[in-house]
Amino acid sequence: MYKYLDKVNCPEDIKNMTNEELDILAKDIRKFLVKSVSKTGGHLASNLGVVELTLALHKVFESPKDKIVWDVGHQSYVHKILTGRKDSFETLRQFEGLSGFPKEIESPHDIFDTGHSSTSISVGLGIACARDIKKEKFDVVSVIGDGSITGGMALEALNNLGYLNTDMIIILNDNEMSIDKNVGAMSRHLSSIIRNSTMNKVKDEVEKIFTVTSAGNLIYKTASKVKDSIVSQFTPQQCELFESMGIKYYGPIDGHNIKELIEILNKAKKKRGPVLLHVITKKGKGYKYAEEHPDKYHGVSKFDIKEGIQPSNSKSISVAVGEKLVQMSAKDDKIVAITAAMPSGTGLDLFQRAYPERYYDVGIAEQHAVTFSAGLAKEGMKPYFAVYSTFLQRGYDQIIHDVCITKKNVTFLIDRAGLVGNDGETHHGMFDLSYLNIVPNITVMAPKDTQELELMLELSAELNEPVAIRYPRGNAYYLNKGEYKKIEVGKYEIIEEGKDIAILAIGNMVKHALEAKEMLLEDNINPTIINARFLKPMDEKLLHELCTKYKTIVTIEDNIISGGFGSRINNFIIDNNYNVKVENIAVSEKFIDHGNIDSLYEAVGLSSKCIASKIKKI
Amino acid sequence: MYKYLDKVNCPEDIKNMTNEELDILAKDIRKFLVKSVSKTGGHLASNLGVVELTLALHKVFESPKDKIVWDVGHQSYVHKILTGRKDSFETLRQFEGLSGFPKEIESPHDIFDTGHSSTSISVGLGIACARDIKKEKFDVVSVIGDGSITGGMALEALNNLGYLNTDMIIILNDNEMSIDKNVGAMSRHLSSIIRNSTMNKVKDEVEKIFTVTSAGNLIYKTASKVKDSIVSQFTPQQCELFESMGIKYYGPIDGHNIKELIEILNKAKKKRGPVLLHVITKKGKGYKYAEEHPDKYHGVSKFDIKEGIQPSNSKSISVAVGEKLVQMSAKDDKIVAITAAMPSGTGLDLFQRAYPERYYDVGIAEQHAVTFSAGLAKEGMKPYFAVYSTFLQRGYDQIIHDVCITKKNVTFLIDRAGLVGNDGETHHGMFDLSYLNIVPNITVMAPKDTQELELMLELSAELNEPVAIRYPRGNAYYLNKGEYKKIEVGKYEIIEEGKDIAILAIGNMVKHALEAKEMLLEDNINPTIINARFLKPMDEKLLHELCTKYKTIVTIEDNIISGGFGSRINNFIIDNNYNVKVENIAVSEKFIDHGNIDSLYEAVGLSSKCIASKIKKI
Repeated sequence: MYKYLDKVNCPEDIKNMTNEELDILAKDIRKFLVKSVSKTGGHLASNLGVVELTLALHKVFESPKDKIVWDVGHQSYVHKILTGRKDSFETLRQFEGLSGFPKEIESPHDIFDTGHSSTSISVGLGIACARDIKKEKFDVVSVIGDGSITGGMALEALNNLGYLNTDMIIILNDNEMSIDKNVGAMSRHLSSIIRNSTMNKVKDEVEKIFTVTSAGNLIYKTASKVKDSIVSQFTPQQCELFESMGIKYYGPIDGHNIKELIEILNKAKKKRGPVLLHVITKKGKGYKYAEEHPDKYHGVSKFDIKEGIQPSNSKSISVAVGEKLVQMSAKDDKIVAITAAMPSGTGLDLFQRAYPERYYDVGIAEQHAVTFSAGLAKEGMKPYFAVYSTFLQRGYDQIIHDVCITKKNVTFLIDRAGLVGNDGETHHGMFDLSYLNIVPNITVMAPKDTQELELMLELSAELNEPVAIRYPRGNAYYLNKGEYKKIEVGKYEIIEEGKDIAILAIGNMVKHALEAKEMLLEDNINPTIINARFLKPMDEKLLHELCTKYKTIVTIEDNIISGGFGSRINNFIIDNNYNVKVENIAVSEKFIDHGNIDSLYEAVGLSSKCIASKIKKI
Repeated sequence: MYKYLDKVNCPEDIKNMTNEELDILAKDIRKFLVKSVSKTGGHLASNLGVVELTLALHKVFESPKDKIVWDVGHQSYVHKILTGRKDSFETLRQFEGLSGFPKEIESPHDIFDTGHSSTSISVGLGIACARDIKKEKFDVVSVIGDGSITGGMALEALNNLGYLNTDMIIILNDNEMSIDKNVGAMSRHLSSIIRNSTMNKVKDEVEKIFTVTSAGNLIYKTASKVKDSIVSQFTPQQCELFESMGIKYYGPIDGHNIKELIEILNKAKKKRGPVLLHVITKKGKGYKYAEEHPDKYHGVSKFDIKEGIQPSNSKSISVAVGEKLVQMSAKDDKIVAITAAMPSGTGLDLFQRAYPERYYDVGIAEQHAVTFSAGLAKEGMKPYFAVYSTFLQRGYDQIIHDVCITKKNVTFLIDRAGLVGNDGETHHGMFDLSYLNIVPNITVMAPKDTQELELMLELSAELNEPVAIRYPRGNAYYLNKGEYKKIEVGKYEIIEEGKDIAILAIGNMVKHALEAKEMLLEDNINPTIINARFLKPMDEKLLHELCTKYKTIVTIEDNIISGGFGSRINNFIIDNNYNVKVENIAVSEKFIDHGNIDSLYEAVGLSSKCIASKIKKI
């Protein structure tokens, strides 16, 4: 089906290909990627951007002897295709299927597990230093995006690398995008280097080589033109930013010109000391829709190739948060919103459009985002930092040190809390209830549904102190259970009064608890369902009543079992010496793989069915 | 007693002083600092370095209307002297006395609480953005050291600042030191800028103005020479590193030349957009011993001014760790050691001298240090990252994401765990048992004494997985209780068999438990003392026995009560449905102030006496 791709199963298979053959292979790969991802969902635009780069890397270097370290790793699909995993793509990101990120257990070619940003230079430098201690010989290549390289730990690593003067190659994959458009002074500087280069861009007709026929087939309309126009488009520039750190800079380099890439990689291979290659790529390259809207085609669900992604009728929780924040800000000019390179993912793009003067995208910089928010709060603002649960781990020290010690009025809108599904173990937000539980001076809430989330947002604006609101990934939903009125701090809600046992559920686990109750009623078990909407402060009054009234208490949270909600309730019960039986339902103490969210809930025992069956056993 | 200092109680008092008067005031302040700190202990060298800079800042800016934000903050003594707190210096760092760091509750001139490094640009930028939203007018000045500015979050903040182009002044206080000698490519670059400036240094005789007479008095031998030689010593340089980020650079500037400082600050005040002033200071300036050994005079205990700090006969736990690691490395060439700018504080200076080729000081860069270690482990090394508990919070995401998901063989040597004393709330290591408790795949241990610590180090070298060993600040000690033989993973030790209750103590709390037992025996209470040396894995076999045998169990940890050791034991008891009374003794859920360590143990209820009295009450 694919003239060249069908012949490629390992890096050796491309070693003898000519540049012209590699160009055709690149087209095969793009076609494969679009077809495959359109069926499974996954990361598309970033992978379309690195096809030639990945081919050139595997042509020049001997993987896995030479180490290619991918930053973030969502752009490693081409690498996976070239290293024997092409046929597994139909299982991509499914439970027990191919991971969407590099995974050491999947292949020796995957040097290091990733998912979060800005780690690859640190990893590569560690590997290179070990190599030098062991007096071995191989190359280390870290591939990092222009968004990721401005993350604090990548900058720390550059500072260390330039000092150690270790042999190592950094590929700066510059597409001027994180998930959304990149921001930051470094980004601007890199762009100015590209602009200063004599020819700005590969011609338009070369960029749109990949087209869809009316029958939905993929063809290469301008394929014949491509070969002629692939010539070096940039003149070499200086970049003092890296040179002053002791890192040799080469660039800009056309990241879609295989010939040029191979030449420069071969040159870099021979250099001593740290080298940075500034490679310019186009996110989404080759698929018209993805080129036009690389943000929308960053991570996608299944889609129709011909039509592209269609607007969805369902509203995400993130969008609901963005809308509510905009609504609140109309009446409250102290509200400011902060994102770390995630405006569309967090719903803050709505805020950006409504109140650009009170909106800050600080780039991939969660540490700075937290302390910057604390600075804004110091001067009387009400900062809302919207961030994915797993990425907030990056700002943990700052939450403690800069926000909570002096009780700064910062609200953390913790999106993607709990299990997130297909992105897997690096992305699940299953630690936040635990890592925030142990921080003094912060109020932590989780709503039963989207309407309660809005009430919590209103409450947060009234509290002049650190607040965290955590909510899951997914579509907005409305339970229509219990009350929807102004929330009191530290007050739980009895949603359904039963008699046999008391179930304390937090956040979206209230929904699962209610569903489990339906199943339990069939067995004549009638639990009381409590919406424990505050991790802390706890509703101690109600807890005393429950511990007196019920012999069995069940806690449910989509968070790791240690140190979180259940743990806090246990401490209360032990501290007050109550003699009640307690069952903590939570994620057990291990990392959870990728997969469809429902299969994951099932696997970790948090589906309604699992919950019901656990309760039945008590 | 002090000709000029006696007249100064607030910033207004220096506004009308001439440069010559300020020079004399600077001498008064140095004398005051040395005298005062020699009596109380505290941070000395860094404060001696910023006397003129602080005077110039308060001369030019209107604090607290203008915001002076100190990074780390241990260099804020001069600022405290100038803002009405001179007379409180005898209570410096004592319980309920003057803090050694800026504290908002102490003075409106202290803009933001600090302690950890690299936060000041983020804070300053937050304040500046709030100012602009509110359309107010004042200056924001962040003072940051050349060590701190290479911390990831400071670099993130620079990237954001250059992009936003906000009016703000950064003072880069360059003394080529963190606590130890600075490392890193940025540092090297800044040094080259200084070298390229026509005259390298202020003349030697100017630097040693502050001398001690044979009678122990402080005099200024070369005072008359000073005035003449205070002239601009540097020619202006370019610094592309900052300029390329959109930050206007001015430097180098002689940080001990009041006239020059005032002139350049006045210039900077008028500039639009971000400005960085590269100010060269000498750490320890004016006190001979401190100039010669600024590392030793960074943080000091009481000392004799004439003699200087005398070598101590007692060995710190950190040194014991360094020695043991050196000893192990003689037989194990896979061991590598990593520090984030703390070689002497962690005892790794010993390793550095013994095995320089396997030693890495990565600078103030805890995030990078963790992931760099993971990279080393990937290639078969056994990395030991020695770090203070409170600073490891900076690498939390990296522990989860880069070390624990794939079980990399990294050992964290967590120094300064538990309460640390005089440095106060930003420095207590009272979260580590909790934040590590919730991370899967890591073994966490804490030894009863220094000899057991050495056994744990030996064990860690045999385990091919993530390990953390936490131990307190202080001198090495040996309990001579229980056994000292090869430790088995997850095995507790019954140190003293009693009968009434079982006390499970972790780490140095074993010592407190044994002392408490002595007191309890007087009341005929005879507790069993268990050395719970593993936070995890737990000794489940022994725990089952204890829960069957004893009606009351007490847990003791010098860590926050939520989510840590006691919490883990509670979960075990609840999970197994044991009907035992449990008392968790730990730090309650709040931040703990500074003070002498014994008074702090008393205040939080962790002294032997408090423990005994709590147990008596049960």
